[in-house]
Amino acid sequence: MSAFVLAEEIKAKLMHVSTATLCTALFKRGLRNQFIQDVRPVSPKGGNMVGQAFTLRYIPAREDLNQLDVFRNPAHPQRAAVENCPPGHVLVIDSRKDPRAASAGAILVTRLMKRGVAGIVTDGGFRDSPEIGALDIHAYHNRPSAPTNLTLHQALEFDVPIGCGDVPVWPGDVIVGDDEGVVVVPHHLVEEVAAEALEMTAFEDFVAEEVRSGKSIIGLYPATNEQTRTAFQAWRTKNGR
Amino acid sequence: MSAFVLAEEIKAKLMHVSTATLCTALFKRGLRNQFIQDVRPVSPKGGNMVGQAFTLRYIPAREDLNQLDVFRNPAHPQRAAVENCPPGHVLVIDSRKDPRAASAGAILVTRLMKRGVAGIVTDGGFRDSPEIGALDIHAYHNRPSAPTNLTLHQALEFDVPIGCGDVPVWPGDVIVGDDEGVVVVPHHLVEEVAAEALEMTAFEDFVAEEVRSGKSIIGLYPATNEQTRTAFQAWRTKNGR
Amino acid sequence: MSAFVLAEEIKAKLMHVSTATLCTALFKRGLRNQFIQDVRPVSPKGGNMVGQAFTLRYIPAREDLNQLDVFRNPAHPQRAAVENCPPGHVLVIDSRKDPRAASAGAILVTRLMKRGVAGIVTDGGFRDSPEIGALDIHAYHNRPSAPTNLTLHQALEFDVPIGCGDVPVWPGDVIVGDDEGVVVVPHHLVEEVAAEALEMTAFEDFVAEEVRSGKSIIGLYPATNEQTRTAFQAWRTKNGR
Amino acid sequence: MSAFVLAEEIKAKLMHVSTATLCTALFKRGLRNQFIQDVRPVSPKGGNMVGQAFTLRYIPAREDLNQLDVFRNPAHPQRAAVENCPPGHVLVIDSRKDPRAASAGAILVTRLMKRGVAGIVTDGGFRDSPEIGALDIHAYHNRPSAPTNLTLHQALEFDVPIGCGDVPVWPGDVIVGDDEGVVVVPHHLVEEVAAEALEMTAFEDFVAEEVRSGKSIIGLYPATNEQTRTAFQAWRTKNGR
Amino acid sequence: MSAFVLAEEIKAKLMHVSTATLCTALFKRGLRNQFIQDVRPVSPKGGNMVGQAFTLRYIPAREDLNQLDVFRNPAHPQRAAVENCPPGHVLVIDSRKDPRAASAGAILVTRLMKRGVAGIVTDGGFRDSPEIGALDIHAYHNRPSAPTNLTLHQALEFDVPIGCGDVPVWPGDVIVGDDEGVVVVPHHLVEEVAAEALEMTAFEDFVAEEVRSGKSIIGLYPATNEQTRTAFQAWRTKNGR
Amino acid sequence: MSAFVLAEEIKAKLMHVSTATLCTALFKRGLRNQFIQDVRPVSPKGGNMVGQAFTLRYIPAREDLNQLDVFRNPAHPQRAAVENCPPGHVLVIDSRKDPRAASAGAILVTRLMKRGVAGIVTDGGFRDSPEIGALDIHAYHNRPSAPTNLTLHQALEFDVPIGCGDVPVWPGDVIVGDDEGVVVVPHHLVEEVAAEALEMTAFEDFVAEEVRSGKSIIGLYPATNEQTRTAFQAWRTKNGR
Repeated sequence: MSAFVLAEEIKAKLMHVSTATLCTALFKRGLRNQFIQDVRPVSPKGGNMVGQAFTLRYIPAREDLNQLDVFRNPAHPQRAAVENCPPGHVLVIDSRKDPRAASAGAILVTRLMKRGVAGIVTDGGFRDSPEIGALDIHAYHNRPSAPTNLTLHQALEFDVPIGCGDVPVWPGDVIVGDDEGVVVVPHHLVEEVAAEALEMTAFEDFVAEEVRSGKSIIGLYPATNEQTRTAFQAWRTKNGR
Repeated sequence: MSAFVLAEEIKAKLMHVSTATLCTALFKRGLRNQFIQDVRPVSPKGGNMVGQAFTLRYIPAREDLNQLDVFRNPAHPQRAAVENCPPGHVLVIDSRKDPRAASAGAILVTRLMKRGVAGIVTDGGFRDSPEIGALDIHAYHNRPSAPTNLTLHQALEFDVPIGCGDVPVWPGDVIVGDDEGVVVVPHHLVEEVAAEALEMTAFEDFVAEEVRSGKSIIGLYPATNEQTRTAFQAWRTKNGR
Repeated sequence: MSAFVLAEEIKAKLMHVSTATLCTALFKRGLRNQFIQDVRPVSPKGGNMVGQAFTLRYIPAREDLNQLDVFRNPAHPQRAAVENCPPGHVLVIDSRKDPRAASAGAILVTRLMKRGVAGIVTDGGFRDSPEIGALDIHAYHNRPSAPTNLTLHQALEFDVPIGCGDVPVWPGDVIVGDDEGVVVVPHHLVEEVAAEALEMTAFEDFVAEEVRSGKSIIGLYPATNEQTRTAFQAWRTKNGR
Repeated sequence: MSAFVLAEEIKAKLMHVSTATLCTALFKRGLRNQFIQDVRPVSPKGGNMVGQAFTLRYIPAREDLNQLDVFRNPAHPQRAAVENCPPGHVLVIDSRKDPRAASAGAILVTRLMKRGVAGIVTDGGFRDSPEIGALDIHAYHNRPSAPTNLTLHQALEFDVPIGCGDVPVWPGDVIVGDDEGVVVVPHHLVEEVAAEALEMTAFEDFVAEEVRSGKSIIGLYPATNEQTRTAFQAWRTKNGR
Repeated sequence: MSAFVLAEEIKAKLMHVSTATLCTALFKRGLRNQFIQDVRPVSPKGGNMVGQAFTLRYIPAREDLNQLDVFRNPAHPQRAAVENCPPGHVLVIDSRKDPRAASAGAILVTRLMKRGVAGIVTDGGFRDSPEIGALDIHAYHNRPSAPTNLTLHQALEFDVPIGCGDVPVWPGDVIVGDDEGVVVVPHHLVEEVAAEALEMTAFEDFVAEEVRSGKSIIGLYPATNEQTRTAFQAWRTKNGR
Repeated sequence: MSAFVLAEEIKAKLMHVSTATLCTALFKRGLRNQFIQDVRPVSPKGGNMVGQAFTLRYIPAREDLNQLDVFRNPAHPQRAAVENCPPGHVLVIDSRKDPRAASAGAILVTRLMKRGVAGIVTDGGFRDSPEIGALDIHAYHNRPSAPTNLTLHQALEFDVPIGCGDVPVWPGDVIVGDDEGVVVVPHHLVEEVAAEALEMTAFEDFVAEEVRSGKSIIGLYPATNEQTRTAFQAWRTKNGR
C-alpha cells in the first residue's frame, strides 16, 4: 500500500471542488487523461466522494477457475479486497471496461459502507444496482449488470497499479467523484492541485454570479479585464473566500 | 407458440427475486449468457415484470418494402404482433441491437398495456419514450429513438426464436425484468430456477441484514461458518421464510 | 448566416409536436437521417426546444494550439460563438461524436441562457453537467465529460455547415428537441413539415385516446376504417383541433 | 425457396460489373443500403461471385442446446444448409455481425465447392480461414475466427429472410461479390440493374482510358460535355461495346 | 514463473494442429473463451508458433511517468521482459485491446528473435510492422501502430497473469498460433488437449480428403456412419497416422 | 492555401524515415496524437508518400442534396478538389471515420495520379479499391467501400482545417505515409523533425545491425553505454551516414 496519507485539510478542499475543475488543474500540469471515461454514479449523491485508491484487479475469467465455490475461500481477492480496503479509501476495480458481467453486488457494497469506505468505482457494472443506488455510499459504474462476476471476471489481486476507464490508478492516488464522474489525482500532486482547484472554484463561483447578472464572458472568463480582477477581489472580501 | 404455460405459483415466486439472483441460478446450470445486454427500463417501475416471451423479428429495412403505407396492411407483422401477443406475456423484439430507428412507439405500447401484456423489450430503442415511461407497463430498450421503425427495421414475423441483446429467446421462455434489466429463463428450467432463486433470496436478505448490522462477509457469504447456517435457520423461523 | 427566419407561427406549431412525429414527416419526404443519434437531454425539461441552428465546429486538438491561454483571445471561436449565437437560436456543436472531453461547461451555457438562446446541442459531452441540468435552458449531449475541451477539441469556426450525431446541420435549419432527443428540420421544409406534424399530432392524440379506451389499432392506426375517419372528424370538432 | 431464377444472360452481365457500379445503379433506384458492411474476401479471387442467395440464420447459442453432439443430427440446420444450398447459389449466413466464434470451417466450405455452390458469405468469421482462402470458391467474412460456431451461434433455420452486415437478404436475391466486397441485388430489379450496370461499366472503362491519357474529369465524368458523348460513341464502336 | 515445462513431444504435436481444432478440444472441456480475439499475424508464416507464455502487463500511461528517458533504465519492464523472456517461450502483452499506440517495435522483436523466443502477441499494435513482418519470428497484433508505446501504455511488470484479447493468460500456459490466430491452452490440460487435437486432425484430414472426392458430410462429419469409421481406420493404416 | 512550401531537401529526408520514427520525434515535442488512427494502405507500396496536405471536408449527406446529378456541377467540391489539389500534395479527406460509403473511387484517384498528386488519405473507405491498389499512387483508407459517396457523405469544401482519423490536419501540414500508416507533421516543425528523424534513423539502423549480430538492447537502445556511442560513431564513419 502507498505510504502516502491524504491530509484532512486537503481532503476538505477536495470536498468542495468539481471534477471538471480538477481536470483543468491537472491539464495545466500536462496530465490530460485522469478522468475515468464512461463511468457514472449509480445514483447521484450531491456531495463529493474523496479518498485514496485501494485497487482490485480483474482478468478475464477461465471457466474452470471461476465456479461458485471459489467464494468459499476467505482469501478470494474480491472478498479480501472488500475486507481490506481501508476506511476512508475508495475501492477502484479494473474490470477491463467490460460491463457484461458484474464487478460486485449490493452485499459487498453494503459491507464497504459499513466499514467506512468512501466509495467504489468500476469501469464495468454493478449487479443489484437499484439497491446499491439507495445505499449511503458513492458508487460509480458503466451500467447495471446482473450476471455474477465469475461469468467474465477473475478477481486476481488487490493493491496494485491498474487501469480503470482508460486512466492509470496507482494505489494511494486520490480519487474524487461528483455527480459528473470520477477523476484520479496522483498523490504527489494532490496538495497543489487541491489548493489551486479551490482558488479556481472561488473564481468560477464569482464568474457564474456575474454571468447570471448579465455580464458577457469576454474579459471576464478568463479575467483579461483589469476590472474583472478588481471585482473578483472585492467579491472575495465580501464573501470571505 | 410454445405449449409451455407458466404456472401462477412459479410466476409468483419470480415476482420476488432479482434478475441478479436468477443469473446466478442459471450460471450454476451452465447458462452464462441469459441477461439481455445493454438494455434498461424506459422508466424504473419498482416491481418485477414476469411473463412468457412472445417474439417479434426485425431484419434490416429495404427502402421499397418499407414505405408508410405498409401499415395499412392489418397483417403487418409489427401490428399483428401487438394484437396477438397473449395477455400476461412479454413482447420481445429482435432489433439487431440497432437503436438508430425505433422498435415501436407509445400508441402500440399503450395497446399492449390495454391488452394485458406484461411488458415489452427491445434491444433497439423506443420512440415516444417519455410517454412510454409514464405508462403502466414495463418497457425496456437501449435508448430513445425517434425515427419510425421503417427507417431501418423490417418487421418480418413473430412467434419464432430470436436473439435479443446477445441472448437467445425461444417463444415461451420466461422473461423476468426488474429495475436492473431483463433475464431470459428457459422454460424447462423455470420451475427449479424459481424455487432456488427464492431460497437464495431469503438467504441474501438474511445476509444483507447481518452485514447492515456490522458483520464481516467472511464466513457469512457464502455461509462457510456453521454459526451462519444456524443463525440463518433461526432468522427463517423468526421471519417465516 | 442563413437568410431564413423562422416565423413565429411555425415555431408555435413546433412547440407542440414531438421529435418522433417530425421524423415521420421528414421520412415521408425522403429524409431518413435527421434525428441526432445518441444524444439526450442533460435533464428532461418537459417542453420543446425550438430554434434555428447556429453552429460551431471542432476539430481534433493539437496540443501546442490548445493551451489554456487561448481563451484569453476574445475571438476564440468557442467564446465568440457563445456571444454571437442569436437569441432564440440553438447552438449546435460538431464534436465528432467524441465525449471524452467537454464541448462546453456551465458558465458558457449560463451565458447562452442569459442571452436568450433556446438551447445547446453537442454530440460530445458537457462538463459541469449537474449545474447545466439545473439551468433554465435546453441542453443535449452524449454523456457528462469533465475534461476541458482543449484536451481533445479545437474550436475552429462557427456558422458553417457541420455534422452532429451523424446528421447534417446547415446554419438556419430548424432544431427541435424534446425529452426524447433532437431532430433537424431543413429550413426549406419547415413550414410544410410543421403543418403536417401538427395535423399528425391531432390524429395521434385521437388514436391514443381511442386505444386507451380499449380499441384495437387495426383499422385505427393508420385509419383504414371509414369509421375511424368519421370518429376523428367528430373528435376534432369536439376538441377544437 | 424463391421461385425466381436468375437467367444465364443476366448472370453473364453481372460477371463483368463491379460491386461499386451495382451500388450506384441501386442508389438511383432509392436502395442505399445493399452493400454488406465490413465483410471482405478470405482471399481475393480476381473474378466475380454471382449467384442467388440461399440463406442460413443463426441466433445466439444457449449452452445446453449447443453441445458437440448436435452435429450427429443430419438435420442440423448448418449441415443441412450445406447439403441443400442449390448449385450456383451463394450461401449467406446471418451471424449477427459477431465474429467471435466461427460461422463455418474448411470442411463445410469444401463441400459447398464440390457441390457447385458459387460462394459463401457471413457477417461473422470463418475458422480454418487459411485453408478456405486456398479453395476454389468465393468466401467472404469479417475476420478469421477459430472457435467452433457452437460457442456463440445456434444454427436455427435456412431459406428465410435474414440480415447480413446490415443488409436485408431475401432468399433468391442476387448476390454479387468482387475483391471489394458483396452487394445484394433484389431479384425483381436484377434484370434492369444488370443491364444498366453493364452500360455504366462501358462508360467508366472509356472514362478511365481518357483519364489515363491525361484528360480532366470535368465535363468527362459525368459526361456533361457534348464532346465526351461523341467520343464515347466512337470508343464503343471501336471497342465493340 | 510457472514451474510447468512443456515437453518436447507435446510441443511437436502442437506444431501440427490448428488453432481451430484446439478450440474445439478446449470447448469439449468447458473452456469456450481461449482464442485471442481480433488479433492476426503481422505476416502469415505458414507453420505454427508454439511456446509457453511469458507475460508483460501494460496499464494506461500517465504522461509524467512515461517520458522517453524511462528507457534509459535497464530495468524498464518492457526492455527487461524482452531480455528475460525464456527462449522458446512466447511473449504475450496485455495492451488492454488498445492499438492506438504501439506495444513494441522492430528492434525489440528482432532481439526476441535473436534470443530464440518463439513469438510475440499483443492485443494492441506493433510499430515498424513491415519490418516485423519480414522477421523470422511469429508476431500477432490487432493492427499497425506507429506511436511509441509511451504515448498510451505504461509497461508495469512481467510474468504475471494478464488478459489478452479477452482471454486470461497465466504464465506458463501454452500459446499456439497459426495463420488464423492465437489460442491459449492452460498448461494442466495441454497434454490431453494436444493428444486429442492430433487425433482430431487425422480424422479431419481424412474427412477433407473424402469431401474433396465428392462425399457428403452427412454421416461423415461427424462419423455417424459405421462405414465412415471403417474407412477412417483403413485410411489411418494406409497413411500411417 | 497555406503559404508554407516544403523544401525539396526536407522532403528528401522524409522519404527515408518511418512514420514510427516521426511519431517519436513529435512525441518529444509534446505532440502525441499525429498518427492517423485505423487507416492503412490500399496496397503496400514500399516507399514513402511525402507531400503537403490539401484537404477535403465531408459532412453527413442529406438525401435531397446528394442525388447523382450533383456531379454535373463542375464546382462540386469533391471533383473540384481533385482538379485543384496541387501536384506533389496529398489529398486528405475528412470522412468522419465512416467507411460505410466511399470517399472516392478509381477514376478520381487515377486523375490525381495523372496530375502528379503524391497520394490520397481518407478515414473512410475507397470504392474500386482493387483498381486503386494497382495504381502508381499512394492511397490510404480504413476499408473498401463500394457505395457511392453520396450515400452518406456531402462533399462540402476543400482547403480548410479538418480532422482525419482523430488527427487535426491543417492545410499545408506535411503528410508522410509508409506501409504502416500516415503521420501528420505540422509545417512549422517539419524542418527540425525531419532532421532529427533522419538522425534517429541512422542510429536505429545501427542498433538493428547490432541486435541482429546478437547484442542485448540494454545499454544499446537507448545508448546508455559509452561503448555504444563510440561504436555508433565508428559505424557512421564507415557507412557514410
